Amino acid sequence: MALKKAGVLGATGSVGQRFILLLADHPEFELYALGASSRSSGKAYKDAVKWKQTSLLPAKAQDLVVTECKPEGRFAECDVVFSGLDSDVAGEVEKAFSEKGLAVISNAKNYRRAEDVPLIVPIVNTDHLSVVEKRVKDARAKGEPKSGFIVCISNCSTAGLVAPLKPLVDAYGPIDLLTATTLQAISGAGFSPGVSGIDVLDNVVPFISGEEEKMEWETKKILGTVNAAQTGFDLIPESSMKVSAQCNRIAVSDGHTECISLRFKSDKKPTVDELKQTLRNYQCEAFKLGCPSAPKNTIHVLEEEDRPQPRLDRDRDNGYGVSVGRVREDPVLDFKMVVLSHNTVIGAAGAGVLIAEILNAKNVI
Amino acid sequence: MALKKAGVLGATGSVGQRFILLLADHPEFELYALGASSRSSGKAYKDAVKWKQTSLLPAKAQDLVVTECKPEGRFAECDVVFSGLDSDVAGEVEKAFSEKGLAVISNAKNYRRAEDVPLIVPIVNTDHLSVVEKRVKDARAKGEPKSGFIVCISNCSTAGLVAPLKPLVDAYGPIDLLTATTLQAISGAGFSPGVSGIDVLDNVVPFISGEEEKMEWETKKILGTVNAAQTGFDLIPESSMKVSAQCNRIAVSDGHTECISLRFKSDKKPTVDELKQTLRNYQCEAFKLGCPSAPKNTIHVLEEEDRPQPRLDRDRDNGYGVSVGRVREDPVLDFKMVVLSHNTVIGAAGAGVLIAEILNAKNVI
Amino acid sequence: MALKKAGVLGATGSVGQRFILLLADHPEFELYALGASSRSSGKAYKDAVKWKQTSLLPAKAQDLVVTECKPEGRFAECDVVFSGLDSDVAGEVEKAFSEKGLAVISNAKNYRRAEDVPLIVPIVNTDHLSVVEKRVKDARAKGEPKSGFIVCISNCSTAGLVAPLKPLVDAYGPIDLLTATTLQAISGAGFSPGVSGIDVLDNVVPFISGEEEKMEWETKKILGTVNAAQTGFDLIPESSMKVSAQCNRIAVSDGHTECISLRFKSDKKPTVDELKQTLRNYQCEAFKLGCPSAPKNTIHVLEEEDRPQPRLDRDRDNGYGVSVGRVREDPVLDFKMVVLSHNTVIGAAGAGVLIAEILNAKNVI
Amino acid sequence: MALKKAGVLGATGSVGQRFILLLADHPEFELYALGASSRSSGKAYKDAVKWKQTSLLPAKAQDLVVTECKPEGRFAECDVVFSGLDSDVAGEVEKAFSEKGLAVISNAKNYRRAEDVPLIVPIVNTDHLSVVEKRVKDARAKGEPKSGFIVCISNCSTAGLVAPLKPLVDAYGPIDLLTATTLQAISGAGFSPGVSGIDVLDNVVPFISGEEEKMEWETKKILGTVNAAQTGFDLIPESSMKVSAQCNRIAVSDGHTECISLRFKSDKKPTVDELKQTLRNYQCEAFKLGCPSAPKNTIHVLEEEDRPQPRLDRDRDNGYGVSVGRVREDPVLDFKMVVLSHNTVIGAAGAGVLIAEILNAKNVI
Repeated sequence: MALKKAGVLGATGSVGQRFILLLADHPEFELYALGASSRSSGKAYKDAVKWKQTSLLPAKAQDLVVTECKPEGRFAECDVVFSGLDSDVAGEVEKAFSEKGLAVISNAKNYRRAEDVPLIVPIVNTDHLSVVEKRVKDARAKGEPKSGFIVCISNCSTAGLVAPLKPLVDAYGPIDLLTATTLQAISGAGFSPGVSGIDVLDNVVPFISGEEEKMEWETKKILGTVNAAQTGFDLIPESSMKVSAQCNRIAVSDGHTECISLRFKSDKKPTVDELKQTLRNYQCEAFKLGCPSAPKNTIHVLEEEDRPQPRLDRDRDNGYGVSVGRVREDPVLDFKMVVLSHNTVIGAAGAGVLIAEILNAKNVI
Repeated sequence: MALKKAGVLGATGSVGQRFILLLADHPEFELYALGASSRSSGKAYKDAVKWKQTSLLPAKAQDLVVTECKPEGRFAECDVVFSGLDSDVAGEVEKAFSEKGLAVISNAKNYRRAEDVPLIVPIVNTDHLSVVEKRVKDARAKGEPKSGFIVCISNCSTAGLVAPLKPLVDAYGPIDLLTATTLQAISGAGFSPGVSGIDVLDNVVPFISGEEEKMEWETKKILGTVNAAQTGFDLIPESSMKVSAQCNRIAVSDGHTECISLRFKSDKKPTVDELKQTLRNYQCEAFKLGCPSAPKNTIHVLEEEDRPQPRLDRDRDNGYGVSVGRVREDPVLDFKMVVLSHNTVIGAAGAGVLIAEILNAKNVI
Repeated sequence: MALKKAGVLGATGSVGQRFILLLADHPEFELYALGASSRSSGKAYKDAVKWKQTSLLPAKAQDLVVTECKPEGRFAECDVVFSGLDSDVAGEVEKAFSEKGLAVISNAKNYRRAEDVPLIVPIVNTDHLSVVEKRVKDARAKGEPKSGFIVCISNCSTAGLVAPLKPLVDAYGPIDLLTATTLQAISGAGFSPGVSGIDVLDNVVPFISGEEEKMEWETKKILGTVNAAQTGFDLIPESSMKVSAQCNRIAVSDGHTECISLRFKSDKKPTVDELKQTLRNYQCEAFKLGCPSAPKNTIHVLEEEDRPQPRLDRDRDNGYGVSVGRVREDPVLDFKMVVLSHNTVIGAAGAGVLIAEILNAKNVI
Repeated sequence: MALKKAGVLGATGSVGQRFILLLADHPEFELYALGASSRSSGKAYKDAVKWKQTSLLPAKAQDLVVTECKPEGRFAECDVVFSGLDSDVAGEVEKAFSEKGLAVISNAKNYRRAEDVPLIVPIVNTDHLSVVEKRVKDARAKGEPKSGFIVCISNCSTAGLVAPLKPLVDAYGPIDLLTATTLQAISGAGFSPGVSGIDVLDNVVPFISGEEEKMEWETKKILGTVNAAQTGFDLIPESSMKVSAQCNRIAVSDGHTECISLRFKSDKKPTVDELKQTLRNYQCEAFKLGCPSAPKNTIHVLEEEDRPQPRLDRDRDNGYGVSVGRVREDPVLDFKMVVLSHNTVIGAAGAGVLIAEILNAKNVI
């Protein structure tokens, strides 16, 4: 089968570099267009980028010529465009791309709250993609020109939080109280400059701008439902679920640790063992669809008393699997546990690639 | 005034070294006896110790001869004995010392749950010392021989948690729900070996053996009351206050960060501003007594959005002051905030010294 | 081709775990026997080990039953035995194994200085293996029973040092002055307890016991030659080459950085460009033999001014390739450069596996 | 005695904040003028600065009004002006200030190589200050208006290197070969952004722009002599002393560790013990002058095999003392040792303050 053409916006940045690593030898996609600022435009990628990944710059990307972020030239030919743009430019660029009929999968926050834009954690709420699937297929049915759209990747710390919640809610009904205290890696903040060394060496920064609000709000959209018309989403109302997040930055390179606590609405509580079994049994739709990046085990439930740990567990299922440990009863709510997710894989670029694989499997792109 | 004679048990260990630093130039105490294992016995302290503090080994301690940990010789002459012993030996030794009429202030966990032993955070519940004060003064009144006793220092992470709770409970009544997620420094674990480097480099260990149980239990004793007979303590019953702790070890040298959340029993809630003002106004009894180590500001309420931070705030009031930041409403309970306390000062050896100052001010030792 | 049977001594330790990871899916070897202390003996490996690798415990190793470290039972059937034993027990055990006719590849220091024991960096001095090759083949020719032997893996910091020296000496003649200052990772020190966290957090320890002597001595054996009788080795005499090492432990998990400086004996000096080309052209014998773990590029010469860096470069060629950067003239000696090598791969367990592959390719095991 | 009026240029930056900490309660100086960019001008210092020191912002500085960096207003009244400006603006500003007759002590690199500007490590080459002393006193003698001047603080890594060299050269004659490999802290790089966290977490960056050249050149000026006319400096010629530096950035907050090696020109070598005694005996001129910040022990010679270490030794003599350990013979040159110096104290702002104290003691300001 012919490879789908993939473009990357913000290709020289931290998220863009991760997209390129994930796409360079992808079985379904071909790196086809790279966009960056005008300063990089016209250069071979290897000359435009300050490559800072632990894997080498893939041969396939080295000589691709970087262009500006405009929906023309090679970008116009793309089947899917991944955006690693900063939020200060993402809004306009992504709008322009989607209006030209392009499928945009974005890591930026700009459209996450837009009514008709799915906010997706690809191991959680792939059913939300039906909104764009419907739009695209309706257009095709009517013989209309290609219908562009934007799909947003969730915030990195939201991804880890909602992954175990999804199977729990499916099994035991709504969660009405939810708290999460995060210990977040620095890689998500990029590297020019990203988090300053002096801020995390022998230190904790107990604040990440906008992060708590994102976690509290995005959880309600992701765990919400597609509306009846399949045009947008019904969020879980504030009155039904209260979410409280406390976010900290620490000296970890990759992998967000989250200490979470939750209460089910129903009085009929599962046991700890039932809850763990439910997490273990969960298979995400992407895996059932046969997506190449989908985790074989969506949730790894660890029994060791001191796990999960970022260094030891972040790469499970290549970073697409989420680890849960220390599941136990909580004296204040019902249950508490520790969740670890790879912030640049399932929490950012990797999620984008898996979303694209799902859209491909569903014949949307 | 003549200096009181002070002994240190476990003098070569991590906590013992801190006691020695704090006592070497103390205005009220004189380093008089140092005890360690038989391996060190008979050596000058400077030859027995592998000194690993950031301040130099005080001149006054260098040539003190280390003895075994027995309530005889110079130890028998001590007015107060500080114990930095490991819990595997602390039980027996501290018992022997107190039975010989010595005043023991212990950092070990062994007697924290003993009915007649005060468990003290010296900026919080100094009223609990009345139990030993009564015992000592009764004995004196009867002309009985010196009445020995043990006072326990709380667990390090408990100290940070209860410090802001005390003035809040005094002002707004009981707290019925309390959660705390900690990001704990490694210094508290000692250094032979303490926390392994590979466990905290680019990593989090989301488990500290026994720590969560200590925080959940000790909070109820410390915030409880002296019983009517002044012989022991009435703990807050489980039914009145539920506490849930989640403890993590991270790559910080000194200073425990705790993200806490709480709900008051009463429906009449303070505002965030009132709550902050209450914290700011709080003066611990030790300060009112004029104890030399007492913090001028017991609780530092910080307004910067990204504080407190261990590197920047742990040394406030020489580590005897606790910093509180990010006080805000909590969607799940009533309020959430970040608390930072110096784990080896107010959470360990420093607390011991301040307790001794209080006992001294009250004429108990 | 049938897989060779491989045993691992010290299987539960840090080096042993690395051997198991490298052997579990090896194309030439089969994990066949695991040895550890009597405490672990009789247990399934998964129950005996506290697994602390970033990759999961391989399925093939999980249920292997651990035995004591004796050259009997399954160990007696092994074609090759890898030793990750600590030096306090390695001496006796490895001797017993080799005397029973077993081929032992050891990471311990005990026999490195033995006259008839090759000390091997498998990308450098594989010609030294001829000493055991001769012994084995002579025995076979005479129809004698299996001739056991020990081959030692070099010290981790020596491996990185000699890797670039080998092609330089081959091309430009002897080096008479050599200095190396190391910045060493903590993983090499194991993890029970290994390097204490408090020793490397916001710190440097400018001393590693015995390390400088090892680097200074081992370099002269490894860069020396097989003696005429092929029974042992002629070391480079002290008078011909002076080596000075300064070793530091820092907060890096894997990857030793070494700042080295050297002077050639000959007055005919290469240019910097010639020297770099020589490094780039170097192909180790293991690669020419087609060994599966051999690095495609033995030496990666980096041109970026700020490389190599441990996080970014340690995994080149799966840790079997060595990176060299900042090659430049040295005002004091002739040239200086920065060398980075993966201490647990080419500097320890990985080297052992590659040595075994070479012995296998040469039909010695 | 009346306090001298002190100004600080670049007051909101990393170096400026250190100046303010050191000057706020200084017995000889009074914080009198604070200069920063036009963005901060007109604001109270506490509102202009993002304070990031481990000590609190001194009360005396909080309400000082920040002005632009012009030699007018309160700056014109200053007896001494400390410059923590970045090099992109320092050149012009410092020139303007000195031309207005002001005494400028600068941490910037701009004028370090200027022929008539002393480059000072205040525990090493205070005799070089005679050049400005002469100029000022000549002008005073002639009744001319105030003669302004610039004195430069050395690069931070140079300071640690030359400190032990000075007494050695005084005692044993010239050093002809000198190598230094550094492990440098991140604080020197400032914090907006300074060193990126991802660059030093589990990593080493073996390159600091311009640093090696600075160390190699500055050493020759600082160890050189005042010329006969007392108008400038005779550097040690390249032919007499060769210096080679290799610089690395690591995850340490404060304190540069340097592994150095040296050869004396003379064939009459001291013993290791003699060399250590010479270092121990050294008293810097600032101490003899009674300067309040001068270290009591200029060089601390440590005998423990694993010292100096940044966390444990950087604060000796409040960071004004330099620690030397592991003094031993070097197989390649004559001696090697490990030097630790506090990069923001004796290597930056602290040096500036001590220079001012010396100038004050000598009646130059």
